[in-house]
Amino acid sequence: MKLVATLTMLSILANSMVCAQGTSGPSMPKTGPALDDLRAVAPGLGKFATSTVAELWKRPGLAARDRSIATLAVLITRNQSVDLGDEIARALDNGLEPKEVAELITHLAFYAGWSNAMAAVAAAKPVFAAYKVDAGQLPPASPQPLPLDEAGEAARSARVSEQFGAIAPGVVQNTTDVLFKDLWLRPDLAPRDRSLVTVSALVASGQVAQIPYHLNRAMDNGLTRVEVGEVLTHLAFYTGWPNVFTALPIVKDVIEKRAAR
Amino acid sequence: MKLVATLTMLSILANSMVCAQGTSGPSMPKTGPALDDLRAVAPGLGKFATSTVAELWKRPGLAARDRSIATLAVLITRNQSVDLGDEIARALDNGLEPKEVAELITHLAFYAGWSNAMAAVAAAKPVFAAYKVDAGQLPPASPQPLPLDEAGEAARSARVSEQFGAIAPGVVQNTTDVLFKDLWLRPDLAPRDRSLVTVSALVASGQVAQIPYHLNRAMDNGLTRVEVGEVLTHLAFYTGWPNVFTALPIVKDVIEKRAAR
Amino acid sequence: MKLVATLTMLSILANSMVCAQGTSGPSMPKTGPALDDLRAVAPGLGKFATSTVAELWKRPGLAARDRSIATLAVLITRNQSVDLGDEIARALDNGLEPKEVAELITHLAFYAGWSNAMAAVAAAKPVFAAYKVDAGQLPPASPQPLPLDEAGEAARSARVSEQFGAIAPGVVQNTTDVLFKDLWLRPDLAPRDRSLVTVSALVASGQVAQIPYHLNRAMDNGLTRVEVGEVLTHLAFYTGWPNVFTALPIVKDVIEKRAAR
Repeated sequence: MKLVATLTMLSILANSMVCAQGTSGPSMPKTGPALDDLRAVAPGLGKFATSTVAELWKRPGLAARDRSIATLAVLITRNQSVDLGDEIARALDNGLEPKEVAELITHLAFYAGWSNAMAAVAAAKPVFAAYKVDAGQLPPASPQPLPLDEAGEAARSARVSEQFGAIAPGVVQNTTDVLFKDLWLRPDLAPRDRSLVTVSALVASGQVAQIPYHLNRAMDNGLTRVEVGEVLTHLAFYTGWPNVFTALPIVKDVIEKRAAR
Repeated sequence: MKLVATLTMLSILANSMVCAQGTSGPSMPKTGPALDDLRAVAPGLGKFATSTVAELWKRPGLAARDRSIATLAVLITRNQSVDLGDEIARALDNGLEPKEVAELITHLAFYAGWSNAMAAVAAAKPVFAAYKVDAGQLPPASPQPLPLDEAGEAARSARVSEQFGAIAPGVVQNTTDVLFKDLWLRPDLAPRDRSLVTVSALVASGQVAQIPYHLNRAMDNGLTRVEVGEVLTHLAFYTGWPNVFTALPIVKDVIEKRAAR
Repeated sequence: MKLVATLTMLSILANSMVCAQGTSGPSMPKTGPALDDLRAVAPGLGKFATSTVAELWKRPGLAARDRSIATLAVLITRNQSVDLGDEIARALDNGLEPKEVAELITHLAFYAGWSNAMAAVAAAKPVFAAYKVDAGQLPPASPQPLPLDEAGEAARSARVSEQFGAIAPGVVQNTTDVLFKDLWLRPDLAPRDRSLVTVSALVASGQVAQIPYHLNRAMDNGLTRVEVGEVLTHLAFYTGWPNVFTALPIVKDVIEKRAAR
């Protein structure tokens, strides 16, 4: 009996204190530090949390759901576990469906790295349990794919193959087969949302050389110019200012070239 | 009784073994691996720890306190929790005041990312408790700000607004209101130290495009040329050599341009 | 008795659920999420894990042992703890010797950062225990060094000293004394394998400016052109696609220049 009680308390303790990788949401404590912790360590953070950062999520120009997509993309790309559980819970509260969270994690296995997705699975599992997500709310493992833009993909594939086919044929092949003919066609996260995940991941990891292709793709997929500006405004807080300032000239160039054509 | 004893032992165990995110300092075990662990896994690391790395902290040209600032900036920017508790304790031992640690974390919320600061709060909380830091040693949430360099800030703001105001007006506005008219004016971490935090964060995250502005600002704020060289010598060990070698040509260019003017 | 039983169960629980930084291998559970967890959170990941990623490790052109070296370099460079224990176990299963794992971690203390190595020690310790690695299987702290290429090192040292000696003399000195006259000459990880670790770390951290020097060194040390292509194919999955696409033009340039000379 004592053992059971101890393990129960242990589990609460572990969730709330030890690893900050526990659970949050309907029936559970936050995974990240509480507001009181901020005030007890860095009172300025308490002030910013309840003013600047709280207001950020209510700004016009980008839906709270989309802000959650961008935030999850940052945390998973940078393997930040402390408040990932909290942010998955907030994403669900903001209207992101469990199947969309599942596909966002799957997408980032390829755009951030396999182990980043493994860490996200570990963080999402208790949140999904607390939100009583059942199998019917998850995407199928092998769904009916969205239709492929055959001409666009053939052009992309030919371009990459010509550039890098002799150097890394495996990369070229997998980019076609695994990414553009499989991952991007999985229907349970819209292409526009996959683009939002991808662009956020690129800013978060400082991979600005890949921004022109993916930002153009994002805007072709429906992300508006105003939304792009707000994504950057949001990302400044979650990736830190330097990553956004390094991305800004590239984003500006993409947007100006699109306006000129 | 058994439960209490168990939870006490649990807490010790969790601090010392499980998450390496526990406590260190006056009355507690290290959060990172002990020297014996290094010797039991990678004996070479034990040798380097007791020779090269130990000597690094005693080199002339940069105070141990400043080495702690740079080290904390690296670990928080890269979200490295294993020995963050140890390094916060060492920073306090090296003379960094609790209010300065608090402001360093607050600063990095904006220069490394909000969740990085959340992880740092979680790591600092038990260290502050062990060092018996009380509320009077913390900075106020909303202190009387330092005086603003109105002309310098107006020029900076106009330049950034012209460049990026049409692309991301929210970023431009927040850079002025949140960063340069609020964060940088918080008095409990000196501008020179905020610059040291910022430059270290830029090297740690590979955000070298932002180095020219912030290194010039750092040197305007009082960081000397010799100190810059020693910061890089120190950062090589804590960010890894490649980040420093990528930063070196940019640092060299800044220093040579300042010497020529 | 109850206390002992509780702590035993606690340790199992902590290893398997709480921190994902426990143990794996002959007699212990995985540190990362199990396949069932992938299926319960993101079924697509379950599919990719059992098809694409499983097949990746069996591709020709790069030995499984070398794939483990590259994978460990990525996880340690990016401080990813969730499945690091699993991957250390897989590396041992793939024929990497414990002394090579020890030296790989030691190497990354300097190429990824000291604290990255500390986190790796924490992850490796229980795996080495489970594999019953004894002191005789570890490298000595201060082994007899490999012979130095005096002329090559003198040229490298002079070039770096001329470039950066006036800016950061400590970096220049330590690069010679600690890296090239000590670390790289430690015999328990072959120079070719150190190069594979280094290049993988550079791709993983986006430090592409350092790729030309280290990729040339890697190929001088025996890494073949086909292996380089397969390393990139492997890294795409573990660092994410964007890092590999940012590295590809630089890799291509190095290989083409070597072919032309």
